[in-house]
Amino acid sequence: MALTTEQRVRRAAVKLFAAKGFHGTGIRDLAQAAKISPASLYHYMGTKEDLLAAIMRECLDRLLLAARQTLDTVDDPAGQLSALVTLHVMAHAAQPAETRVVDNEVGALSRGRRRVVVGLRDEYEAIWAGAIEKGVSAGVFDVPEPAVTRLALLEMCTGVARWYSPRGALSLDGLADRYAQLALRMLGGPPTGGETAAERAREVATRVWRIRP
Amino acid sequence: MALTTEQRVRRAAVKLFAAKGFHGTGIRDLAQAAKISPASLYHYMGTKEDLLAAIMRECLDRLLLAARQTLDTVDDPAGQLSALVTLHVMAHAAQPAETRVVDNEVGALSRGRRRVVVGLRDEYEAIWAGAIEKGVSAGVFDVPEPAVTRLALLEMCTGVARWYSPRGALSLDGLADRYAQLALRMLGGPPTGGETAAERAREVATRVWRIRP
Repeated sequence: MALTTEQRVRRAAVKLFAAKGFHGTGIRDLAQAAKISPASLYHYMGTKEDLLAAIMRECLDRLLLAARQTLDTVDDPAGQLSALVTLHVMAHAAQPAETRVVDNEVGALSRGRRRVVVGLRDEYEAIWAGAIEKGVSAGVFDVPEPAVTRLALLEMCTGVARWYSPRGALSLDGLADRYAQLALRMLGGPPTGGETAAERAREVATRVWRIRP
Repeated sequence: MALTTEQRVRRAAVKLFAAKGFHGTGIRDLAQAAKISPASLYHYMGTKEDLLAAIMRECLDRLLLAARQTLDTVDDPAGQLSALVTLHVMAHAAQPAETRVVDNEVGALSRGRRRVVVGLRDEYEAIWAGAIEKGVSAGVFDVPEPAVTRLALLEMCTGVARWYSPRGALSLDGLADRYAQLALRMLGGPPTGGETAAERAREVATRVWRIRP
């Protein structure tokens, strides 16, 4: 299926912002990469910052949607954590360029837009915080400092975008699985128990991020 | 003590590369921030890429030096891991801007220089790999996939540069301590046992990165 102009521009922007940074990418570079004129670029996408904000919002919206869809059917904390780790790892390993942009360019947004993006990120992190808290209350997890552990977990999982290669020995499923085990260890949780939830998360991730098995 | 011109340029470059990216930073921005003329900038530092390569090499050289100094006197694997995590966390939390530059701009280096930087990073990671392997051989750690776990650990520890604030409730020592505990859990290691080594690592980190207690 051919890409729409909007999709073509969006892809070119993700690639360029990831490689050269938002400030290092000119409108001309963008127009050239998307094979349209700078005037058409503006017509389709607005300013360079509009484009950046749209990319970030889309990434975070998807992650939020996927997390909510998955947790809808999972009740136990070990399952919830396994599902969240699986989703996060698969999404970030599958989208290294998007991850670079979302991670590195929040500072390039104007104040109002930054607030929106940070708000979405906070919503997403609150889902993680809720699952950890639930496990601690239920006596399933043993976590002295839940907020620090949550941040450590998220950085560990996001980090796959910086090193994972689909050409390596490890499949995306295998990677997500190993990370879910590491996460349960960090939380002092049961060594197993999240498998069904992780399976559900793999299905959601494969659909939302169009990951080929 | 007044900074030398070289130090002033180096600091300005770290700040600008971190905020606007290597490609987004012009020679004029650098000269202006360091309060010298573009011609003097070139005289002191060579090209913009020379400057980037020097920043990266210095960061990695320091990390390697600190790791070797610390492990010189630590023999048990749990101690070695606690020490490595302590050093890495303190170094990265104390230098968020340098971390951004080293993490994000390797792709901006020409091939020969990239090889040098990647070589230093590989040397550093080999120290971690050695300590993990030693613990697995000794039956102290239980790690199904040592390489994946090492990368997960490193990303988790580097990630503090993206969220830690010295103005928050947690001290740098407390942060490092918590991370060393999380690392031992991930490795299936003993819950305690690295305290003396971590203490030694804190001393080295405080000296090498001039961290004020």
